[in-house]
Amino acid sequence: MRFARIGQPGHETPAVMVTDDSYVDITEITADIDGDFLARVDLAAAAAFVADRVASGLATSLGDQRVGSPIARPHQVLCIGLNYADHAQESGMAIPDEPIVFNKAPNTVIGPHDDVIMPRGSVKADWEVELGIVIGARARYLPTPIQAWEHVAGLVLVNDVSEREFQLERGGQWVKGKSCETFNPCGPWLVTLDEIDDVQDLDMWLDVNGQRMQTGTTSTMIFNIPFLVWYLSQFMVLEPGDLINTGTPPGVGLGMTPPTFLAVGDVMELGIDRLGTQRQLLIAAD
Amino acid sequence: MRFARIGQPGHETPAVMVTDDSYVDITEITADIDGDFLARVDLAAAAAFVADRVASGLATSLGDQRVGSPIARPHQVLCIGLNYADHAQESGMAIPDEPIVFNKAPNTVIGPHDDVIMPRGSVKADWEVELGIVIGARARYLPTPIQAWEHVAGLVLVNDVSEREFQLERGGQWVKGKSCETFNPCGPWLVTLDEIDDVQDLDMWLDVNGQRMQTGTTSTMIFNIPFLVWYLSQFMVLEPGDLINTGTPPGVGLGMTPPTFLAVGDVMELGIDRLGTQRQLLIAAD
Repeated sequence: MRFARIGQPGHETPAVMVTDDSYVDITEITADIDGDFLARVDLAAAAAFVADRVASGLATSLGDQRVGSPIARPHQVLCIGLNYADHAQESGMAIPDEPIVFNKAPNTVIGPHDDVIMPRGSVKADWEVELGIVIGARARYLPTPIQAWEHVAGLVLVNDVSEREFQLERGGQWVKGKSCETFNPCGPWLVTLDEIDDVQDLDMWLDVNGQRMQTGTTSTMIFNIPFLVWYLSQFMVLEPGDLINTGTPPGVGLGMTPPTFLAVGDVMELGIDRLGTQRQLLIAAD
Repeated sequence: MRFARIGQPGHETPAVMVTDDSYVDITEITADIDGDFLARVDLAAAAAFVADRVASGLATSLGDQRVGSPIARPHQVLCIGLNYADHAQESGMAIPDEPIVFNKAPNTVIGPHDDVIMPRGSVKADWEVELGIVIGARARYLPTPIQAWEHVAGLVLVNDVSEREFQLERGGQWVKGKSCETFNPCGPWLVTLDEIDDVQDLDMWLDVNGQRMQTGTTSTMIFNIPFLVWYLSQFMVLEPGDLINTGTPPGVGLGMTPPTFLAVGDVMELGIDRLGTQRQLLIAAD
């Protein structure tokens, strides 16, 4: 199943996609696609509800409606740093012995095609296509990685937009360059695990102004999806609806020779197999 | 005014303290002490409501009721590192040129006297008495620090409990040692600014098992309260209800010779002038 939230910011309607261009409104099942819903949803019952609506001719055309983040604002957005060996190398950093963990402010989460705001004073804004894990059940001290799957609601496409000067040259902790307004485009869909044959074999890509910058695959993650959920649950409690950005493959601006960063007017387009595509225009902060 | 939340976890009643031992239930004004309430509250009207209830004999004795965090779970918990010159020195770190910023998971926030859970495998759990800023109005690109006061709802006492091995020896980013379950005791009260003559002249202290460990004053902060709110608003958007832990004075376990850490059964007691006191028992993770 592919969950989505459709409509203007703050007024999104919860939906299940029927095709890439049509959906069923699931307001009767839930007011929002949030942690409470993800913790209690019966996927089979939801699928039956959607099938019934489709059979009754009640699917709606997406048309040019705005698509929001497919999940409501999470309790926390966690990120994994340097989780692709080639990306660690291009960043001039050692391959980590265990996951590097940092946070983004939850209010950075926006829709997949919303404008991204260049922060005031930014000279090193950068892109990062990533696979995001959405937590479906509270996770605390999971015994082994295999249990992690029962705590995952599904996967999303994210752009972990980053300001490298703020991240790396302004005091040592990364959050400062990760939490700027609009810095976490998310979606278009929350895709449940039954829709994906092998989550560790998904191609991913990102273009800037039509030029391919990042090409990767989830098969080259250093720490895989169940390991990451298990690992994080040893240090903190993961809540339903939490988002985990799992790291980016090679090809970020910081790793280019010379380093190349975003400018107002640039367009980022990105995608991951099965998880859809995004497109963002960079605009100046007002 | 001193706001509080009284009752069992998840079922706290919003209240205003009348004395240290009695309060007025303000459920008629708001369902909770959260960002929405702090953004809209009319303090004069709330004070009039409380005075009327007191005059009608409707103040309630606190007795042995549990006191919760005086704020509902925040959108984000930000922390400032090394914000007291003497603490930076005892930690063997340079005085920062600008604030060091990191995050804690919002679900670490607990009541001021709740048990603190020693994480599994922890050998370096440490204490940090801190002054917490609670945001009252959305803050984005504030022009100068002086505007920050209009965006502050009040101040709280917090214990920024830290696991030093997880923080410093497990991958470089601090959040891993800051986000463990129960690691942010908060309260007992959210104290509005009108209750405090000089926020930069408050004594603070922390005892472990009755022995004084930390003695400090907010007068020796490197970056003061309005500067911190202004500074953070240049990098991210602060939301009503957000909590900012502003750093700890000297005397943490990490800075002792030899370093000394917490054990199950230890009791932490701490306080800041005007902001009340806390007491936590360390218990083992189940």
